[in-house]
Amino acid sequence: MKDLGYYNGTYGPLDEMTIPMNDRACYFGDGIYEASTCENFNIYALDAHINRLYNNAALLEIDIPVTKETFKNILLEMVHKLDSPSQLVYWQVTRGTANRTHFFPENTPANLWITLRPFQLSDIYKLKKLITMEDTRFLHCNIKTLNLLPSVIASQKAKEAGCYEAVFHRNNRVTECSHSNLLILKDGVLRTAPTDHLILPGIMRAQVLDIARELQIPVDETAFSLAELMEADEILVTSSTVLCLVADEVDSIPAGRKAPDTARAIQEALLEKYYRETAGRQ
Amino acid sequence: MKDLGYYNGTYGPLDEMTIPMNDRACYFGDGIYEASTCENFNIYALDAHINRLYNNAALLEIDIPVTKETFKNILLEMVHKLDSPSQLVYWQVTRGTANRTHFFPENTPANLWITLRPFQLSDIYKLKKLITMEDTRFLHCNIKTLNLLPSVIASQKAKEAGCYEAVFHRNNRVTECSHSNLLILKDGVLRTAPTDHLILPGIMRAQVLDIARELQIPVDETAFSLAELMEADEILVTSSTVLCLVADEVDSIPAGRKAPDTARAIQEALLEKYYRETAGRQ
Repeated sequence: MKDLGYYNGTYGPLDEMTIPMNDRACYFGDGIYEASTCENFNIYALDAHINRLYNNAALLEIDIPVTKETFKNILLEMVHKLDSPSQLVYWQVTRGTANRTHFFPENTPANLWITLRPFQLSDIYKLKKLITMEDTRFLHCNIKTLNLLPSVIASQKAKEAGCYEAVFHRNNRVTECSHSNLLILKDGVLRTAPTDHLILPGIMRAQVLDIARELQIPVDETAFSLAELMEADEILVTSSTVLCLVADEVDSIPAGRKAPDTARAIQEALLEKYYRETAGRQ
Repeated sequence: MKDLGYYNGTYGPLDEMTIPMNDRACYFGDGIYEASTCENFNIYALDAHINRLYNNAALLEIDIPVTKETFKNILLEMVHKLDSPSQLVYWQVTRGTANRTHFFPENTPANLWITLRPFQLSDIYKLKKLITMEDTRFLHCNIKTLNLLPSVIASQKAKEAGCYEAVFHRNNRVTECSHSNLLILKDGVLRTAPTDHLILPGIMRAQVLDIARELQIPVDETAFSLAELMEADEILVTSSTVLCLVADEVDSIPAGRKAPDTARAIQEALLEKYYRETAGRQ
């Protein structure tokens, strides 16, 4: 298949797949999701993504009806149905199908969704431009939910400004981007906001912090301001689908690019890890 | 039919209706909705709901592909397909069907959804209990979007506490409830939070304010605190599906019920208006 949609055991080409109109995703966005990439039919950082999914399900009291092992096996079985060994792997769990009531429906199993599409990792060394925007999202940003409208709006604004991402700030504190985490290098230290309810604990964010530690770069999980962003030596943008990018412009003002060797060392180590861990046809 | 689902011109029994897996409602909650009730096949306050829908669509840059008149005619045609003349009428518009990208898809028409279910107005004179909760929602509460997870969670907490609704407060300012507006009577004045980005401009809220003015009750659209809520003479909860209810308990503490005649006069006038405007079989 070229692409694939999966819903509770039924699957087919993505544009032919349908789901019940009364799935709670449709009217409440009542669900959680994960996205990763796949090379050689290996899903990158699968355990970390599965663990986060189950953590988020617990936070929202969604009872995933299969074990972690079973969910992983479903995903690994599905990726083999695509022609392409490199894929964008997206999966979500929603609180079930029922007539619309705000409170949780009873005796209603959660629904499992998967979509798979061919994927090619973009050039991670291509420099990116960013815009900044007020963070108007809810106070549950630690949970990877389907309530993403503010991120959709911000992402569209970034695109219209010819930029890759929108950097959110709340009361002058930089939080993260619309669908990425944000880190800065300053005076040899890698700094990023702490994992509270204002940001997503990104899998790639954690990996970049690990790599920094391996490279003897001190890590500081303390939030920084917009002014500190503008004065950063380097600005790094991380997410599961782009790994780690470097920005050279914020709100049309040149920014970062004062420690290119350190930024490059992090990117190279991450890329090496990415291809090492997805090597070998399964 | 007993109930009905409608999607872009296709319709059928609600539990048989499916929609494309790639509708942006499914993974972003990227859409807006309205809900009203129908008596004698007449949808109550239809113009007000349709006007709000189009206003909200404009705020989110969703281009509804039909005119207001056409949308109203579709709704009025659909309600006649149900056996019951009294219905819960729900409709939503989503930003279209496309592979998942945060920014808006191009050349993709919006999708029109309708669900209809039999409905019976509950006894509006039955007193209700409330709980209070911190308002953790996003800062776009003026738009009636499908990003409703915090309201879902709050509504579930209210249900678990044996209460009808959860009252949200933000920095001690009472905003509204999880799926209702909130008003108080104090010293003869009807008070409710102003229509800014922190609350939904409820159709029933506006109607209750109009009725108060007709009854010579002064109206004050100034936000109030939790302490003021607890000391209110009466506490009113409004929404399109319940009209106007009165609460007598907040967080297990007796509250309100110090101006029952005024509260009753508002309720009676609203109920009279409701049945007058939906009278006569269409």
